[in-house]
Amino acid sequence: MQPPRGTRDFPPEIAILRKDIFTKIEKIFQKFGFDPVITPIVEYWETLKGKYGDEAENKLIWRFKLPYSKKEYALRYDHTVPLARFFARFQSKLPFKRYVIDRVYRYEEPQKGRYREFWQADFDIIGSRGSESDVEIILIVDTVFKEFNFDNYKIKVNDRRLLRGIFEEELKLHDNLILHVYRVIDKLDKIGIDEVKKELKEVGLNAEKIDKITDIITLRGNEVLEEAERKYGKNQNVEISVDNLRCILDLLPGRTRKRVEIDLSLVRGLDYYTGMIYEAIVDKPKIGSLSGGGRYDNLIRLFTKKNIPAVGGSIGVERLIDAGLELGVFKLDKKTYTQIAVIYIGNTFKDAWEIANKLRKEGFNTYIDLMKRNFKKQMEYVVEKDIRYLIIIGEKDLKEEKVTFQDRITKERIRVESKKLIEFLKEKIK
Amino acid sequence: MQPPRGTRDFPPEIAILRKDIFTKIEKIFQKFGFDPVITPIVEYWETLKGKYGDEAENKLIWRFKLPYSKKEYALRYDHTVPLARFFARFQSKLPFKRYVIDRVYRYEEPQKGRYREFWQADFDIIGSRGSESDVEIILIVDTVFKEFNFDNYKIKVNDRRLLRGIFEEELKLHDNLILHVYRVIDKLDKIGIDEVKKELKEVGLNAEKIDKITDIITLRGNEVLEEAERKYGKNQNVEISVDNLRCILDLLPGRTRKRVEIDLSLVRGLDYYTGMIYEAIVDKPKIGSLSGGGRYDNLIRLFTKKNIPAVGGSIGVERLIDAGLELGVFKLDKKTYTQIAVIYIGNTFKDAWEIANKLRKEGFNTYIDLMKRNFKKQMEYVVEKDIRYLIIIGEKDLKEEKVTFQDRITKERIRVESKKLIEFLKEKIK
Repeated sequence: MQPPRGTRDFPPEIAILRKDIFTKIEKIFQKFGFDPVITPIVEYWETLKGKYGDEAENKLIWRFKLPYSKKEYALRYDHTVPLARFFARFQSKLPFKRYVIDRVYRYEEPQKGRYREFWQADFDIIGSRGSESDVEIILIVDTVFKEFNFDNYKIKVNDRRLLRGIFEEELKLHDNLILHVYRVIDKLDKIGIDEVKKELKEVGLNAEKIDKITDIITLRGNEVLEEAERKYGKNQNVEISVDNLRCILDLLPGRTRKRVEIDLSLVRGLDYYTGMIYEAIVDKPKIGSLSGGGRYDNLIRLFTKKNIPAVGGSIGVERLIDAGLELGVFKLDKKTYTQIAVIYIGNTFKDAWEIANKLRKEGFNTYIDLMKRNFKKQMEYVVEKDIRYLIIIGEKDLKEEKVTFQDRITKERIRVESKKLIEFLKEKIK
Repeated sequence: MQPPRGTRDFPPEIAILRKDIFTKIEKIFQKFGFDPVITPIVEYWETLKGKYGDEAENKLIWRFKLPYSKKEYALRYDHTVPLARFFARFQSKLPFKRYVIDRVYRYEEPQKGRYREFWQADFDIIGSRGSESDVEIILIVDTVFKEFNFDNYKIKVNDRRLLRGIFEEELKLHDNLILHVYRVIDKLDKIGIDEVKKELKEVGLNAEKIDKITDIITLRGNEVLEEAERKYGKNQNVEISVDNLRCILDLLPGRTRKRVEIDLSLVRGLDYYTGMIYEAIVDKPKIGSLSGGGRYDNLIRLFTKKNIPAVGGSIGVERLIDAGLELGVFKLDKKTYTQIAVIYIGNTFKDAWEIANKLRKEGFNTYIDLMKRNFKKQMEYVVEKDIRYLIIIGEKDLKEEKVTFQDRITKERIRVESKKLIEFLKEKIK
């Protein structure tokens, strides 16, 4: 009776909350000029192969053959590679801004905020190289958090070229070593600077390099840029990325800028990033990043053979929802879309059912107990589902061509002429 | 660059149409007191096993193992079995009315209106045995077709017990034979009565039985019930189902009843039906049934060990959309959610971008070309996407603190003071 491990069933009150949240996120995407694209959940394995790194390919991707298929399939691992495939196929007019809020699959060990089937809300701009598009991505993330009244978030921003310029080109950390170093410094927020130093030593770095690294990754904001320029400013990648990050900070409106922090310890796992990268986090609950993304100017080329720049972000809606529920910004207080319950007493079911169908035709979400149970049972359901308005019909009402209207919140209770009921309800329920 | 055979990519104009259609269907479900439930796309194979018959199990179900999983998985084949599992797990309060509009998977040979990944819109009532719930299912189907202004549909209704009473108990067609007979008569609409007679003969029936069968399956509506009662009325299953079908016809409002036709040649493939069954069809285009469903009083027991009645239906939204596009009731005329494009001329990009962001903050879906291209290129995009309203900013405008507003439909063109722009647009664009 359980769904597969790491997947979930959503009963109505959760499904309704999720739908509400998704709709609000969608409206933000639409405000910024993004339109929806839908791609299948199943892709050919060869489409995803070589895009996500070894760990993903050998442990995390849901890949399989059917007993009666020659082709190997995979469930999509993110929305970015399918977008690149889509774009290559349709050659959409540039700039191409698309959003999607839908399922992706990773065969991870389930834990809080992490599932094997989960939803991601992605928004990407294809075709634009300028800092303004990086800024729009950050602006959208900020707008989403504001929309839901989160007040304890920040958006960490970095640039892959800054990492490359300093650590690979200037400090000359190469090959396998650099991957280890990135993995360690990416954990700074989680494990603290002393542990980072210890792990860098374990990785095999000498004291001088460790100092140079920790000197700069512990800085934040403008200090990072000043220090990078002072020490490594002659490196071209450092120069370009410092300019880009300065430009991003300049273009951000004040209310967003104070949420943004340049952070050189931000690395992000995926292989395909080439420029600005970001992650949004909340200080509690401890749940990892709630949104992440960046620029990937080379991914589209894998599918189109053309150089087409792109930048995008992803809202981890599972973590957003889990964090929001814990913080109290989301509440499971809506158990049904039903507005009105028609309640019958005595031998009035058929008339009650006709009234219910009339209300539906007029656009009211209306419930009536089809099990023909007694008043008490009908009311138990109403209370359980927390349906606000009642229309009650007894045999006496029927004779007098009246019904009783009741508002379970205001406690208002009033008899209404049956033929004026619709008019009355349209006034009461907007 | 292609998605897997039988799956599809939906560019914005199709994604927008689908979303619009799904929202309208959802609102109808909500009017009838249904709430959403979401279950995963991936189920354990053992959950689906034994529910759909041999052909589905051995040819159609997407079932697989991962390289690193012991368990066998399957992509859901319909929404009904997952609902039964969900219900058994949560033991939701009865009656339980849930809807879902989401993907299901069948490894069929793709053709018009038939895909390997497709969407079904399901609505089910668990817990209610009465004819009123059968009627609600039919009413919803009728409401959906009315909502979309289809005018050439009918809803064929039958009862599995009527089939059993007449063909299995009275005409004594048993075992393998009856399955062949059902398969043949189910094709009546498609192949005509002469072909049905021929195929019944091939199956091995004698002339007398063939006459008895064709006599009744060629009748329609009330005549079916009268004939069934006259000839086979002493059979208990015939009696019960004739009563039920009469009751359903009586309870239907006139506007729906004239769409409904009792049809003894309606069989429906799935094993789990036990009472009323229905299918909705359009006379053109030739695309098969657009909705089907029925009563399945024994399915829930497989999961709960309790007898709990259930009835439901499914809108085949792919066929609904394909048919609707062909009939012209659906149009791909909305290419974007974007309402306003901000166009810049000369050195005004930064100011234009600030205006765009202000409009977004005020709730307008706003586009601005982030590629900093010339006027002509910007306008090409506007025309391609068919964005209705333009805000145009040139260098002279900037000095005079004005912008030009243009409505591409009414051709209205007017200069507006920048600081009054928001107010102006709120008046223009509702």
